[in-house]
Amino acid sequence: MQITKFVTPEIIFGKGAIRQVGESCLRLGAKKVLIVSDSGVIKAGWLDHIIENCKKAGLDYAVFYDLSTNPTSDNVEAGCQQYYREECDAVLGIGGGSALDVAKAIAIIATNGGDICDYEGIDKVTRPLPPLVMVSTTAGSGSEVSQFAIIVDVRRKKKMTIVSKSLVPDIAIIDPYTLVTKDRLLTASTGMDVLSHAIEAYVSVAATPLTDVQAKNAISLVSTYLRPSAASKTNEEAKNGMAMASLQAGLAFSNAILGAVHAMSHAIGGRYPISHGDINAILLPYVMEFNLIAAPKRFKDITSLLGENIQGLSDIDAGRKGIEHVKQLAIDIGVPECLSDLGVNREEIIAMSEAALEDACMITNPRDMTLDDVSKLFQQVI
Amino acid sequence: MQITKFVTPEIIFGKGAIRQVGESCLRLGAKKVLIVSDSGVIKAGWLDHIIENCKKAGLDYAVFYDLSTNPTSDNVEAGCQQYYREECDAVLGIGGGSALDVAKAIAIIATNGGDICDYEGIDKVTRPLPPLVMVSTTAGSGSEVSQFAIIVDVRRKKKMTIVSKSLVPDIAIIDPYTLVTKDRLLTASTGMDVLSHAIEAYVSVAATPLTDVQAKNAISLVSTYLRPSAASKTNEEAKNGMAMASLQAGLAFSNAILGAVHAMSHAIGGRYPISHGDINAILLPYVMEFNLIAAPKRFKDITSLLGENIQGLSDIDAGRKGIEHVKQLAIDIGVPECLSDLGVNREEIIAMSEAALEDACMITNPRDMTLDDVSKLFQQVI
Repeated sequence: MQITKFVTPEIIFGKGAIRQVGESCLRLGAKKVLIVSDSGVIKAGWLDHIIENCKKAGLDYAVFYDLSTNPTSDNVEAGCQQYYREECDAVLGIGGGSALDVAKAIAIIATNGGDICDYEGIDKVTRPLPPLVMVSTTAGSGSEVSQFAIIVDVRRKKKMTIVSKSLVPDIAIIDPYTLVTKDRLLTASTGMDVLSHAIEAYVSVAATPLTDVQAKNAISLVSTYLRPSAASKTNEEAKNGMAMASLQAGLAFSNAILGAVHAMSHAIGGRYPISHGDINAILLPYVMEFNLIAAPKRFKDITSLLGENIQGLSDIDAGRKGIEHVKQLAIDIGVPECLSDLGVNREEIIAMSEAALEDACMITNPRDMTLDDVSKLFQQVI
Repeated sequence: MQITKFVTPEIIFGKGAIRQVGESCLRLGAKKVLIVSDSGVIKAGWLDHIIENCKKAGLDYAVFYDLSTNPTSDNVEAGCQQYYREECDAVLGIGGGSALDVAKAIAIIATNGGDICDYEGIDKVTRPLPPLVMVSTTAGSGSEVSQFAIIVDVRRKKKMTIVSKSLVPDIAIIDPYTLVTKDRLLTASTGMDVLSHAIEAYVSVAATPLTDVQAKNAISLVSTYLRPSAASKTNEEAKNGMAMASLQAGLAFSNAILGAVHAMSHAIGGRYPISHGDINAILLPYVMEFNLIAAPKRFKDITSLLGENIQGLSDIDAGRKGIEHVKQLAIDIGVPECLSDLGVNREEIIAMSEAALEDACMITNPRDMTLDDVSKLFQQVI
């Protein structure tokens, strides 16, 4: 076994956890925080809660919320200008992956300077970030606990994967009650993102016993709680289960990295304003099918964790049953089935395949991929 | 569900991980580290490796290794004097729980001042500690990842439990290869300590889904690897398994806290120079028996994780089977069976019971305990 590393933030989890946000920032020495959020979170009323809590803690603040669906280097630039102008000394992200990733990117520039595109790839961030508190409201991205930030370089039309231990926030706050304001489609799409995090982390070539326990539990929680969570806005048990699944999948993939689903998804997301969760939901079973021969035993485990009976089945056959389960789950909760429905153009397949092969997430995919392999997979789903 | 918190250090795990110690200290800004160790570690040659590695990294150092079996407030005082005298700016612990806990205690005083006895209890440490790197060489204490330090107050003959988030080290280094120098008795005794951490964390009233996954995996690893690890100094697969078990049990109990085994064990360890692992090994099955009715379903899970067939058994009967398993495991690996063999005197039972009831670990025991309950348990094992 190689040497493995495992990094996590301090985690505060539970209904009402959001009320610890002001105290958490203060504890890290913050005086004025830049709150990075998005319009959905503001509309749902969560930003008001955060601001009230910051005020109560005697914390000064400024708010930045001008984000694209897949947030861009321009968003980061605008946020940085506000951070400097308002003389902030800490960053507080609240929302889904977009808000949290932009919050991280602003924090990178705040202490490291330069342009966010300078930090694409692994371990390019050298100086510690300002105090960083993340409040996740989607049960999806896992960004609140991860070493990742994904930002679109608008010039190259490319989702850049930025990976560094410095990006692990100081404190992650997960309040499952914030999930009751998510609509059905967002619940379904972000839930499939959680499942893709857990499955990709579990079959990653960088998986370790520490990431395995988190990934396995996340798969099992998704299997129990995603359908009921998509079925009802107010099922708190299901929201709780999905919030924990998202957290554990985040801990797993932050340390085991991901695979071809995310590499391909980033290639699409750099070109089209489509939700990351929807893209992943469509790609996941096809990539599982492709990867099956690389880790049959692991795919058999996944099928069992999804609640299927695998008795008497070979590893490969058990793995196939799990892939069918994932397809059915996507149908049950109503995520899109085909990328062409979402406007993705077949003429871009080669360019997207090239981008996917270059993505940092491709390195840990369990099966080697050629340009031809990636193109064929894109053809299947577009 | 209440709000739960989960804190861990950065973890570096694997054969050869010990060679990252110098770079780890440097990365945290250290210029001169106080290395806290013990004579066993020095004799086994590990301190030489550490020093060589520090030198290579250009790091200055001083060494403190004058520790009692159960380390005392006097040890901490002497270590602090050396820290000041040598003008250190970071602490590096290498060894088992004793060395690591003294390293933490020295770090507390270095930035918080006063006497270590001022910090007994929960959350008494208010200022951040100096950079703290821990290298575990026993697969036992879990101190390298925990919020705990246990120090004997020599005046009151009492093991003080100090609990604070600040005590979680910055970096924990676990190199399973260091376990090959442990003798059979130490392997057996520290291995039973790991099992008691995992079981107490799993039935703790403060257990959460995040601690459960770690505790469960640790129990299962102990069941697979403790016997072979005690049987052979050179079985690297078993050492690896026990190192991971110790780490995961540490992550579980640091965040779920412990129970009556540790509360009672601290009461004994404050009075007698007996190894913590031996005491826990003796207490564990008796405390499990007492706690069984508080959490039958959880004890049933434990039995199954220990590899026993629980099909068709009621929760209580399944739980009993697990207790028998733990007794047999202790016999198989040859840990002591009775505290009177180790010189513990029955006349101290009342005083020890009172101390146990006051211990911070008692708060999370799943079954309420009276003075009479604790006394009766002590009578069973002395």
